[in-house]
Amino acid sequence: MRARPSWLGTLALLVTWIPVAVAQTGPLPSWNDGPAKQAVIAFVTDVTREGSLDFVPEPERIATFDNDGTLLIEQPIYVQFAFALDRVKVLAPQHPEWRDTQPFEAVLEGNMAALAAAGEKGSVEIVAATHAGMTPEEFRQTVKEWLATARHPRFGRRYDELVYQPMLEVLAYLRTNGFKTFIASGGGAEFIRAFAEERYGIPPEQVVGSRIATKYERRDGRPTLFRLPPVDFIDDGPGKPVGINQEIGRRPIAAFGNSDGDLEMLQWTTEAGKRRLGVVVHHTDAERGYAYDRQSHVGKLDKALDAATVDRWTVVDMKRDWKTVFPISP
Amino acid sequence: MRARPSWLGTLALLVTWIPVAVAQTGPLPSWNDGPAKQAVIAFVTDVTREGSLDFVPEPERIATFDNDGTLLIEQPIYVQFAFALDRVKVLAPQHPEWRDTQPFEAVLEGNMAALAAAGEKGSVEIVAATHAGMTPEEFRQTVKEWLATARHPRFGRRYDELVYQPMLEVLAYLRTNGFKTFIASGGGAEFIRAFAEERYGIPPEQVVGSRIATKYERRDGRPTLFRLPPVDFIDDGPGKPVGINQEIGRRPIAAFGNSDGDLEMLQWTTEAGKRRLGVVVHHTDAERGYAYDRQSHVGKLDKALDAATVDRWTVVDMKRDWKTVFPISP
Repeated sequence: MRARPSWLGTLALLVTWIPVAVAQTGPLPSWNDGPAKQAVIAFVTDVTREGSLDFVPEPERIATFDNDGTLLIEQPIYVQFAFALDRVKVLAPQHPEWRDTQPFEAVLEGNMAALAAAGEKGSVEIVAATHAGMTPEEFRQTVKEWLATARHPRFGRRYDELVYQPMLEVLAYLRTNGFKTFIASGGGAEFIRAFAEERYGIPPEQVVGSRIATKYERRDGRPTLFRLPPVDFIDDGPGKPVGINQEIGRRPIAAFGNSDGDLEMLQWTTEAGKRRLGVVVHHTDAERGYAYDRQSHVGKLDKALDAATVDRWTVVDMKRDWKTVFPISP
Repeated sequence: MRARPSWLGTLALLVTWIPVAVAQTGPLPSWNDGPAKQAVIAFVTDVTREGSLDFVPEPERIATFDNDGTLLIEQPIYVQFAFALDRVKVLAPQHPEWRDTQPFEAVLEGNMAALAAAGEKGSVEIVAATHAGMTPEEFRQTVKEWLATARHPRFGRRYDELVYQPMLEVLAYLRTNGFKTFIASGGGAEFIRAFAEERYGIPPEQVVGSRIATKYERRDGRPTLFRLPPVDFIDDGPGKPVGINQEIGRRPIAAFGNSDGDLEMLQWTTEAGKRRLGVVVHHTDAERGYAYDRQSHVGKLDKALDAATVDRWTVVDMKRDWKTVFPISP
């Protein structure tokens, strides 16, 4: 038998190399093969197959994602709350009265029990002091500057680097398949808009969230929007379908959440009597992330975990389903 | 001289035919050449030219359009108002008490003076009776069915056919150049969503408008959104920049309006110290449409006409600038 010419060897290499490359660049590479990954891929395959009974035309392929705990870390406290606490500290020198006024005194002394005791009224005052009294552009800039310097207490990384790599892959996979991806968050829309485009590829006009009042007025002769203290709309729980209807005006065909704040969005999305996708991210990984559900103060997942069984939503077991949790540092 | 072979004749025909075809299919074919058409084209050329000082990256190319009087006929009464009056008549048999209760009595008797006298309170009651008490899907379906049968009193055509052909061309031209086109209307967002995608190519998620309150609840065990009477947000005048910021989260770089209700949107868009476009459609054509401005009850254009000079907005003289007004009937 004669020796194969070298180009045949090269061809053989190419042939064996191709499937490997496909496997590496296929959809959802950070997901382990299992029911969760399969459910997402099966759904997308079904609704995008022309002629299928489940086919959904491209303009109606709307997917909504909760932010905190679904796309972004939310432990030990919500990122937006960490921002607010840091802002109180930065602004404190201009407010000497805060040293003996709650809830600011509690923040400055790191007294979380006193802060919790200040309750709803305390939160409103902290929001007013840290989120209002400026234009939306100024607020977004403040958030960006904070993100550039603040570090997560456990992981030591920028908060907006602590996004879930497997979920970024879901966003990309859906968009490749003609979906429009939106955020529907209980957090502030302006806060999320400060990093959503860069981190998630989701532009400001596709971020639905809670809002504080905003007023139009001329300042120094220039037309200006100005953020005012009162909270105007809470996009959480039953507010999520309301906010989605207000700003998107279509019922999503896929929704992704991780807590009871997503219950109504998931129900409204999936109980349409058609092929729909509901996904609940279950934080089960204390080692690479956090493990929490029914008893957690932040991101409590109780009713929505029970509903997942009844309504046949896909529950992502983070520990089992995800190969990696966060993007690799650059 | 020998006769040209026939293929040369064909070629000659093609050569003379090509420039004609280009002229016919170039941008804004229903616009007469003049300052308004030139201003739109010059702006788009400037902000899309890579390397230009005026260049705007594609994600930031946001254009907002008023609806009534800018994209759609608004005389002799707003289309949404015509819908509400017709709905009162349709629903009257279920409400015998309306025969002697204002403002319904006025509507049923066609007594416009009494209707006007019922004022703001009267309008609120008509909105409650005709726009609330159903799901958003049911409301949109009601609007679609009404549009299919109602006819404009003067032109005898479907109301949603009485859209401005030259403005449809502006929408298409902007989209071809990487713009995202939005509606920012004082009218109800749900009303406009019933026809915006089909007529303007603007999907529901790109319609910003006024809103009535909407509540999430389970009805017969099914998750449902339900429209409630109170008006929740008026997206008009100073409300337009507020609504645009809420739902789009970016300041537009081009805005199109036709009345004082668009003044603040135009100011906020154009006073950014950069290359921006403000356009005011001036209804000057009593023959093919209507002629109205400073004294009109519907679509009053007074302050915004003065501001157009100061702020260098482009004023479209409908009679002079538009070759055709409405799309040709199919």
